[in-house]
Amino acid sequence: MKIAISEIKARSERIFEKVGLSRGDAEIITKVLLETEMRGVFTHGFLRLARYVSCMESGGIKKDGNFTVDFDSPSWAAVNGNNNLGIVVSYKAMELAIEKAKATGIGIVNVRGSHHFGAAGYYASMCADADMAGVAMSNGDILVAATGAAEKTIGNNPFSYAFPAGKYGKIVYDVAMSNTSDQKVIRLEKEGKPVPLGWIIDKDGNPTTDASEYMKGGTLLPFGGYKGYGLAMMVEVFAGTLSGAAMTGDVHAWNQNPEVGGNVGHMFMAIDLAKLGDPKSYNDRVEKMLDEIKAAKKATGVEKIYYPGEIEQEKLAKCLADGTVDINDETMAAIVAVEEKYGL
Amino acid sequence: MKIAISEIKARSERIFEKVGLSRGDAEIITKVLLETEMRGVFTHGFLRLARYVSCMESGGIKKDGNFTVDFDSPSWAAVNGNNNLGIVVSYKAMELAIEKAKATGIGIVNVRGSHHFGAAGYYASMCADADMAGVAMSNGDILVAATGAAEKTIGNNPFSYAFPAGKYGKIVYDVAMSNTSDQKVIRLEKEGKPVPLGWIIDKDGNPTTDASEYMKGGTLLPFGGYKGYGLAMMVEVFAGTLSGAAMTGDVHAWNQNPEVGGNVGHMFMAIDLAKLGDPKSYNDRVEKMLDEIKAAKKATGVEKIYYPGEIEQEKLAKCLADGTVDINDETMAAIVAVEEKYGL
Repeated sequence: MKIAISEIKARSERIFEKVGLSRGDAEIITKVLLETEMRGVFTHGFLRLARYVSCMESGGIKKDGNFTVDFDSPSWAAVNGNNNLGIVVSYKAMELAIEKAKATGIGIVNVRGSHHFGAAGYYASMCADADMAGVAMSNGDILVAATGAAEKTIGNNPFSYAFPAGKYGKIVYDVAMSNTSDQKVIRLEKEGKPVPLGWIIDKDGNPTTDASEYMKGGTLLPFGGYKGYGLAMMVEVFAGTLSGAAMTGDVHAWNQNPEVGGNVGHMFMAIDLAKLGDPKSYNDRVEKMLDEIKAAKKATGVEKIYYPGEIEQEKLAKCLADGTVDINDETMAAIVAVEEKYGL
Repeated sequence: MKIAISEIKARSERIFEKVGLSRGDAEIITKVLLETEMRGVFTHGFLRLARYVSCMESGGIKKDGNFTVDFDSPSWAAVNGNNNLGIVVSYKAMELAIEKAKATGIGIVNVRGSHHFGAAGYYASMCADADMAGVAMSNGDILVAATGAAEKTIGNNPFSYAFPAGKYGKIVYDVAMSNTSDQKVIRLEKEGKPVPLGWIIDKDGNPTTDASEYMKGGTLLPFGGYKGYGLAMMVEVFAGTLSGAAMTGDVHAWNQNPEVGGNVGHMFMAIDLAKLGDPKSYNDRVEKMLDEIKAAKKATGVEKIYYPGEIEQEKLAKCLADGTVDINDETMAAIVAVEEKYGL
């Protein structure tokens, strides 16, 4: 259903405050979920609200807003989210990285003790808004097979980058490491349909198009084979190994037991483009690059060549112009249930 | 043929010095080509020697060793390779990034006016040898289709990262953005064999398994579809747009006209792990992560799960233990031809 942006914003903030977050933290998580929803990434928007609330109720996610800096230096900091909401922790960590980049040109913030951080693209995008390049990544519970493995060995480790792009707004790239999500495989199985070859392997590591093999011990494959596996490892080292967070099999599957803390690890990097030369020249150049790519000869049936994040940017602009956001019925019903439970 | 490491090293240095490089630059390019060859990446090893020499002869690559720092700050520098050998320029640029990382924790060096830089993994690996994380990337002449395009729109933009890995040596990831190289497609066409679906599109942008479509205006596809296209764009912006180098269609295809300069762009990043906390703890953690991944259940027929760069590391160790490197006959013949031409 279409709902006014101002209304869903107010309702979400009220819920999170009522559940126990500070006003500021309730505003942060609402801002991130709302923008993610308006960008059309509904799997990481308000769909998660009820789940975050239930994790806070059962203690798996803390509400105290405790954000500890373990180590600080001009260009780098290591922080501990003390198992607060991953989105709030990540927002604050990227703010810190941006602050450092403003001072020194480059800021890196590693995070441990965090939780599911939602849409990676949001944080990278914060940098683009500050005329910076941004990178955001997180490890996660194991979901994807290493090349050669017949079982889940590494997380689906989201990776995102963003750049300001002049007249084009922002380039925002945001991907996970599997060819597809487990939810898509499960849906195809329910519909009795096959999955494309390359999406999953069965319990012995054999490629299969039989979606039902997934629930019998099958595993998602990384995109691009060993190339995706290697990117998942890059994220694991930067976000997990370096941060002091849990790694691979020790990362908790947050959507299973809401009472268990995550100790998920992230890495955020901000690079101030104004410190890397002439911002005016950068804008001209990034526009020229995109002009050329977008002007390429199109494949049969293709109307437009997109840059990363362009489709989501268009959806966001449409919502803002309209003043409403379309939230699916299931998500709204879950929000209403939380409101009723808290007497809102 | 197998040749003693010391012999090929001496012969390569002699050639490059004779052609006009300084002793130091001849040593650098030899070191990089030799290690790349020993790592088994023969396509980026001595196979390129004759081509680099012919570019130097015709002026497309300069020999003056002119390496200019356009801009310098504690954590970042922009340099101009003044169209010298991409490998030598890149080696010096990464040395500068490492120096900056030693001082401030993080060093980024952007490069313009460079040329084909060979194996990206070499430079990232220099960081791992210095107990740092390293990232190396380069743009290149257009070879890959943007998602939705029916023609070459973006370079095959190599991307590499490396981490020290305790008892495991180094993790070294090094990929290009297409599913496969154009050379492989051309070879399959010659053999009258089809290519796997997903490797190429025909001149109208339709997916095809007919290798012969490639030479009729077909294009390589990025690995992982839009996920690979988006990574190619990340490299283009970091290495091309930010550095002031040529971008996309303006990057010269160095293996076509040896007399034309490249103005290729690179980006090198070094992160000093000792500055990001406790190196002992990092080593324990990276080993634990790799222990777990390598211990995963293996797919039918798989004997070992590798981490990125492990296969190449094993090949290098074998060469070093043996004191020899295996160089293919075609490459040796080209080297001998250069030696004869220069009276060596």
